[in-house]
Amino acid sequence: MVRARSEERRVEIVRAALEVIAERGYRGAALGTVAERVGLTQQGLLHYFPTKEALLVAVLEERDRWDTGGGTRALADAWRPDLLASLVEYNAMRPGIVQTFSALLGESVTDGHPAREFFAERYAQVRSAMADVLRAEYGDRLPSGLTPEQAAPLLAAVMDGLQYQWLLAPESVDMPGAFRAFLDLIQGPRA
Amino acid sequence: MVRARSEERRVEIVRAALEVIAERGYRGAALGTVAERVGLTQQGLLHYFPTKEALLVAVLEERDRWDTGGGTRALADAWRPDLLASLVEYNAMRPGIVQTFSALLGESVTDGHPAREFFAERYAQVRSAMADVLRAEYGDRLPSGLTPEQAAPLLAAVMDGLQYQWLLAPESVDMPGAFRAFLDLIQGPRA
Repeated sequence: MVRARSEERRVEIVRAALEVIAERGYRGAALGTVAERVGLTQQGLLHYFPTKEALLVAVLEERDRWDTGGGTRALADAWRPDLLASLVEYNAMRPGIVQTFSALLGESVTDGHPAREFFAERYAQVRSAMADVLRAEYGDRLPSGLTPEQAAPLLAAVMDGLQYQWLLAPESVDMPGAFRAFLDLIQGPRA
Repeated sequence: MVRARSEERRVEIVRAALEVIAERGYRGAALGTVAERVGLTQQGLLHYFPTKEALLVAVLEERDRWDTGGGTRALADAWRPDLLASLVEYNAMRPGIVQTFSALLGESVTDGHPAREFFAERYAQVRSAMADVLRAEYGDRLPSGLTPEQAAPLLAAVMDGLQYQWLLAPESVDMPGAFRAFLDLIQGPRA
């Protein structure tokens, strides 16, 4: 019972953090602001999430859960190319969370960063799930000639790389359009 | 004369910072360590570079100058696809500077970050230079059917995105191989 209530509280905090991030972006997402929104002191919040990074990782995990439609069974399907195109369009409407993802990914590559393990595992899973989806759809070669294992890291790289360019110049980078052009490229000429 | 000596000193500091970054990565590149290496106090170094971010931006500008072979005349040429492939191979041998670039790019998308302007301008220039090079080589359409303006942001995105995946899992991501696969894709089947 205590455990269930504690879990509920964690979920509430993560949702509040997501709201704050959406409104104020990465830098505005101070632990104090999030704590206030759920009626906790900052000290009280640290009981659930000992650092800002730990809270942000929980937010990104929650986002991945939402974006991939819930539990692990749906996860593989979520990386279907057509759903990815919709995801990128959706991302173009939520700069706060994309900024948080991109900033934290950047920090995570530095030595000993608390989010490093989350991102390392995430990309291993994402590459593997994308390759599975592409193999199920195209077999051993995509129409472009790429193998599923070649296409998967490129898909993830294009999504991430375009996010940085778009965040830096939203008015001159058409993120969803650029991503669709890449999808057309790897899927080859349509029938 | 005073100005010339001051400029010389700046160059010396940037080179020392590059060395420290190569040895210790982004987090190890403390201003104090760099100052010591050039025989300055940290206070003395702040006279040349008021913040760590300002020094790191100067390091990345110097790297771009090197990578593009010096002055602006050579710059356009430096984004030729075959030279980019060599650049990515070279990057795979210098994780310290790639880590610094990637971490600072990540931070730069947050509001009011001191490196934001550098990266926003850099990507505008890089996209434009890449599109020019591709147009000179292929005209209005690459063999893959992409326009030079479609291919340029994708090229930059793939380079950046692969760097994150590689930095997080160097043993399982073949960054140069993945980049070559992408180049083959946009340049279409070879004659």
